Amino acid sequence: MISESYNIYPLLDLMGTFIFALSGAVAARKKGLDIFGIFSIAFTVACGGGIIRDLCIGAIPPAGLTNWLYLVMVLAATLIGIVFNRTVNILNHPVLVFDAVGLSVFAVSGARKAIVFEHNYEVAILLGIVTAVGGGVIRDILLDRVPVILRKEIYASAAMVGATIVVIGEYLHYSLETVSVVAIVVCFGLRFLGLHFHWNLPSFPDKESEKDK
Amino acid sequence: MISESYNIYPLLDLMGTFIFALSGAVAARKKGLDIFGIFSIAFTVACGGGIIRDLCIGAIPPAGLTNWLYLVMVLAATLIGIVFNRTVNILNHPVLVFDAVGLSVFAVSGARKAIVFEHNYEVAILLGIVTAVGGGVIRDILLDRVPVILRKEIYASAAMVGATIVVIGEYLHYSLETVSVVAIVVCFGLRFLGLHFHWNLPSFPDKESEKDK
Amino acid sequence: MISESYNIYPLLDLMGTFIFALSGAVAARKKGLDIFGIFSIAFTVACGGGIIRDLCIGAIPPAGLTNWLYLVMVLAATLIGIVFNRTVNILNHPVLVFDAVGLSVFAVSGARKAIVFEHNYEVAILLGIVTAVGGGVIRDILLDRVPVILRKEIYASAAMVGATIVVIGEYLHYSLETVSVVAIVVCFGLRFLGLHFHWNLPSFPDKESEKDK
Repeated sequence: MISESYNIYPLLDLMGTFIFALSGAVAARKKGLDIFGIFSIAFTVACGGGIIRDLCIGAIPPAGLTNWLYLVMVLAATLIGIVFNRTVNILNHPVLVFDAVGLSVFAVSGARKAIVFEHNYEVAILLGIVTAVGGGVIRDILLDRVPVILRKEIYASAAMVGATIVVIGEYLHYSLETVSVVAIVVCFGLRFLGLHFHWNLPSFPDKESEKDK
Repeated sequence: MISESYNIYPLLDLMGTFIFALSGAVAARKKGLDIFGIFSIAFTVACGGGIIRDLCIGAIPPAGLTNWLYLVMVLAATLIGIVFNRTVNILNHPVLVFDAVGLSVFAVSGARKAIVFEHNYEVAILLGIVTAVGGGVIRDILLDRVPVILRKEIYASAAMVGATIVVIGEYLHYSLETVSVVAIVVCFGLRFLGLHFHWNLPSFPDKESEKDK
Repeated sequence: MISESYNIYPLLDLMGTFIFALSGAVAARKKGLDIFGIFSIAFTVACGGGIIRDLCIGAIPPAGLTNWLYLVMVLAATLIGIVFNRTVNILNHPVLVFDAVGLSVFAVSGARKAIVFEHNYEVAILLGIVTAVGGGVIRDILLDRVPVILRKEIYASAAMVGATIVVIGEYLHYSLETVSVVAIVVCFGLRFLGLHFHWNLPSFPDKESEKDK
């Protein structure tokens, strides 16, 4: 039952892993890291959020460390990010679309796994967000910059909406399958529209901004 | 029994959560993060230290993810940090005082929870410190700066004194209630006096300082 | 049985802890941190990787928090890093050699502990690497720079080779003792030769490098 959430969307889940790893590999290459550094960042982006989720719900050892398919995806993404770097950069637009798919799938699978482990709805929503965006946040920490997802755009907020739909569906006893599809579509749609129309959440610049205390 | 440490000082605990979240929200707003980024930093400061503590003592899932009262405190602090930003900045001095209360309460409740989970005294002291300062450290990492508490002032050291008093009291079989009050008062007093008199722990500047290897 | 991996190489393990803590103390002192900050960084470098490993394999509470010998090593390293700072800097070369010993011992003990806890080979290799390099990565994050081990040199890759030898030996049912000695020697040799001959893994600089998206 626990592994169920991984049997149903295995292709989407692996695709999300691959795309997240690719985004990490491209960012790490730009920073001039060596080949092992590129692999480490790629692995972190792809599996970091899920590992934090698994630690928090008590799924030991974390799936990201035990499932060799994830490792294969990360290795493939690292190689492609290095060898076809120019192509990947040209394909920036499609990559953002795939990234939105990864975001949606991870938000939904994170919330589902928390529910399967019988945790409450708050845990499910928070860990849905963590699964979807945790890896990207760790990537930016390792690359020594303020996590981009905290600064702009509809991103983590789309993950929150996706995870919340899963929780509402669970509360109303709807079929988890149907609800998951709806949640993925809505989360993806929000992110895609946000990208297309350059939606940003409000921030509050003032004269003091960018200054530390 | 496990939740006992949360029934006794619930008001102080929630106050500490609120104040820590407020300090995170103000710092995130200054950095120009969007509304979701501000909430994320506020949540991290308020609940991050406790989540690390709970992972280390095996309290799964962490209280910071399951107790909706914490979430309400963080949401309230986020809103107040955004709407009343000017007032909060003027109130800098009172906020530092409340922050000292949060530090003291979290150091004591962290050490107590480790003891309740039957871990040894070293774990209790180390996790008392982590509970009190962990959130602030993660905040500074996310905002891309060297954690301020590592650089100056009596802060983590006050938390260590508070957690140590709890452990000594436990060892001498004193009432946990009395000991906790003493520990909170001493920790708060140290931090408050440190702020007032600008006490700093020694550091060791030399010609090479601030240079990386 | 669980503690077995700590009874066999206790001296090497403690020596690795001490050296890692010393490297953290020296780096933190250079950054101008206060005495508590120096201790915190030293503790993090020495015990951080092992704590993450223990959380991932379910060894609660982590050994780094319960074994007072580690704490003594860290305290001693902090004091020596502060008092004999000049000497330690002159001894840079020997310190790098001891650090290579720590790297090798931690990579092997990390992989062994994962196997003892009956996790699969992928977990053992990944956590061997994490045990060996995790602390250094957290140190660099706290000191606000891109982790040096991701940028250059044979370092994490030597740890991977060491952990992989342990796993291959386990798979072939060789004596864990013999295999561990071989793994430590090979890992140390790789790191030492890499230092001596300035080996670097390939990185991929281009006109766009060092620019963020």
